[in-house]
Amino acid sequence: MYLDTAATTPVDERVLEVMLPYFSDQFGNASSIHQFGQIARAAVDSARETTARFLNCKPGEIIFTSGGSESDNLAIKGVLEAISCQLSAIRPHVVTSAFEHHAVLDVVKELEADGKIEATYVRPNREGLVEVADVEAAIKPSTVLVSIMYVNNEIGTVQPIREIGKMIERVNRDHDNRIYFHTDAVQAAEYFNMDVNWLHVDLLTMTAHKIYGPKGIGLLYARKGTPLKHQIIGGGQEYKKRAGTENVAGIVGFAKAVELINLKESAKISKLRDRLIDGLLNNIPDSFLNGSRKHRSPANANISFMNAEGESILLNLDMEGVAASTGSACTSGSLEPSHVLISMGLKPEECHGSVRFTLGRSTTQAEIDKVLAVMPKIIKKLRAMSPLK
Amino acid sequence: MYLDTAATTPVDERVLEVMLPYFSDQFGNASSIHQFGQIARAAVDSARETTARFLNCKPGEIIFTSGGSESDNLAIKGVLEAISCQLSAIRPHVVTSAFEHHAVLDVVKELEADGKIEATYVRPNREGLVEVADVEAAIKPSTVLVSIMYVNNEIGTVQPIREIGKMIERVNRDHDNRIYFHTDAVQAAEYFNMDVNWLHVDLLTMTAHKIYGPKGIGLLYARKGTPLKHQIIGGGQEYKKRAGTENVAGIVGFAKAVELINLKESAKISKLRDRLIDGLLNNIPDSFLNGSRKHRSPANANISFMNAEGESILLNLDMEGVAASTGSACTSGSLEPSHVLISMGLKPEECHGSVRFTLGRSTTQAEIDKVLAVMPKIIKKLRAMSPLK
Repeated sequence: MYLDTAATTPVDERVLEVMLPYFSDQFGNASSIHQFGQIARAAVDSARETTARFLNCKPGEIIFTSGGSESDNLAIKGVLEAISCQLSAIRPHVVTSAFEHHAVLDVVKELEADGKIEATYVRPNREGLVEVADVEAAIKPSTVLVSIMYVNNEIGTVQPIREIGKMIERVNRDHDNRIYFHTDAVQAAEYFNMDVNWLHVDLLTMTAHKIYGPKGIGLLYARKGTPLKHQIIGGGQEYKKRAGTENVAGIVGFAKAVELINLKESAKISKLRDRLIDGLLNNIPDSFLNGSRKHRSPANANISFMNAEGESILLNLDMEGVAASTGSACTSGSLEPSHVLISMGLKPEECHGSVRFTLGRSTTQAEIDKVLAVMPKIIKKLRAMSPLK
Repeated sequence: MYLDTAATTPVDERVLEVMLPYFSDQFGNASSIHQFGQIARAAVDSARETTARFLNCKPGEIIFTSGGSESDNLAIKGVLEAISCQLSAIRPHVVTSAFEHHAVLDVVKELEADGKIEATYVRPNREGLVEVADVEAAIKPSTVLVSIMYVNNEIGTVQPIREIGKMIERVNRDHDNRIYFHTDAVQAAEYFNMDVNWLHVDLLTMTAHKIYGPKGIGLLYARKGTPLKHQIIGGGQEYKKRAGTENVAGIVGFAKAVELINLKESAKISKLRDRLIDGLLNNIPDSFLNGSRKHRSPANANISFMNAEGESILLNLDMEGVAASTGSACTSGSLEPSHVLISMGLKPEECHGSVRFTLGRSTTQAEIDKVLAVMPKIIKKLRAMSPLK
């Protein structure tokens, strides 16, 4: 039973089907001018149009990358390096949140440590929500970039991106330096409105393998006119913003995955999520939900079990055939408590026993009931063994 | 008929076969600790061992990337940024060649333009070969990196990488700053010795889609101890040298493609190449081969036809069902004459009519004979129309 869709989803068979021809028969390099190349070029162009329609932007505003981490790096470094060239007199200031994915957070921290930028890390509230007023209060005359994720990957809370976007637009009217707004929407695409104009964002990160597309392909939306310095250079691909032979099969599969997104699935998945959350909280004492119940991804249930250790819970679940997660896959193996939970004000002992269940298209009520059946026993056993008790 | 394998190869059906399970059933994130993740992790580990055996290095010296351009960028920027931190007193100097792929050349030029490094661009000789003595002569006390490609992507000439590597080892004995040696071996893997110890290289770039593997996956070999600053950051993947969810299917396919390389194919392909070169040169006046005949990839025939225009030749060939190329796919659409041919001392009018035929595993004698049958007519027609005549 797979309850870790926030780490990755399987590839939908309809996605794989459209990818297959681009490995073998239609294998051309999209930059070649002969027929093999032109067929690949047409496929890439068509995929770009599909994803642009999904985001309500122009095809020329889509930059295909190798995934979410590359897109986040490109957005942050790309904008800041481009702006630093323009504004040599000031040190650019960035506002982000303390619980971003490391692909945003670590880039901001590195640029800050190198003395290239200043940064403010807005803390989410105890509900795991970044407040618009806190972002606004963090803005300074030298602020040029705000980066706030759409849906948090660990606790599934949905940030008020549209409200932040509108606030930034208002601030920009009297601001010396145009502030650009980036959102890492990797965990949002399956369930939420991704219209970049509705959201009022300038840059947006997406990746295919969280929406039943393949790994190794993502995109950065960059609104026309956004200063953006290329990070990988060489060929003229992706409007000279990202060099490298186009991953045609990946791009085609990504677009198909986008087409298959069905927002109407949310209600069904929310219901299963609520059954899981309520069942766990009601049957296991000293457990609590992490992150807002209301402003929450339909897929996410992140629950802390006091006096139990997250990795031990996972291993026990795994033996029962249940795949779940602590924190993000990208930092698994780390013994540090989750930076997300800490940022919300949890104490380390409240973080250690946290488990993330993330549901998906194939999740059934029987699977949820299986988790509800095994978890009390697992927690009881681990608590009996716990030296923390 | 596809004679553009230097742009890309199709995916071998045996490669695709091993990739398929990793899209659907075995779709885990290799960083997840449950069974789905561990199956993916084992596949990535096994692929890393396979490629390491091919390169005669340790698995921990392989960094999987999204392809050749990213690997080249990582090698050049990664080493120079890491060294700049160590040697703040001097401006690091780089030696490269004037006919590198743009994924190397443009990075060096950008760092040079930003004042971060000094660079020397060694010109190849009229045969398209970089001479060891010229590289050695370019080395200065501040030199920290040499980057010379193994096989040139346009003219197929094979550079004396091993001899350069040995020369650098010798120079390093009395050199204040250790010089690191990188080679872009993207076009070499199919036909040449890729043993990094035999080659005496510290860094080596490879990509899958030139060896019948998928697009969107490549690697950088970095010898243990080589200073290398990560370029894409966030998660702890690839020994913290390259963040991003592992492209498991791509990595598995890449390793299978490496396994399927059969150096014994060279002789067969060389024979077809010679038939093509001789047939064209003997039957079309005012034509000449670009690049050394002797030190040449078995797959490459790059020929200039005076008073004819390369793109017109390609379009006429395409109408006959023959897919070939001018220069590299990455710069197609550019009206500039090839920087490779110019660097060898050709005049612009000698470059404009150049065509690159690159053969592959499936190329037959009948296909070569078809090219030999149609080319004289195409060149005759274009010359009759040429304003240059």
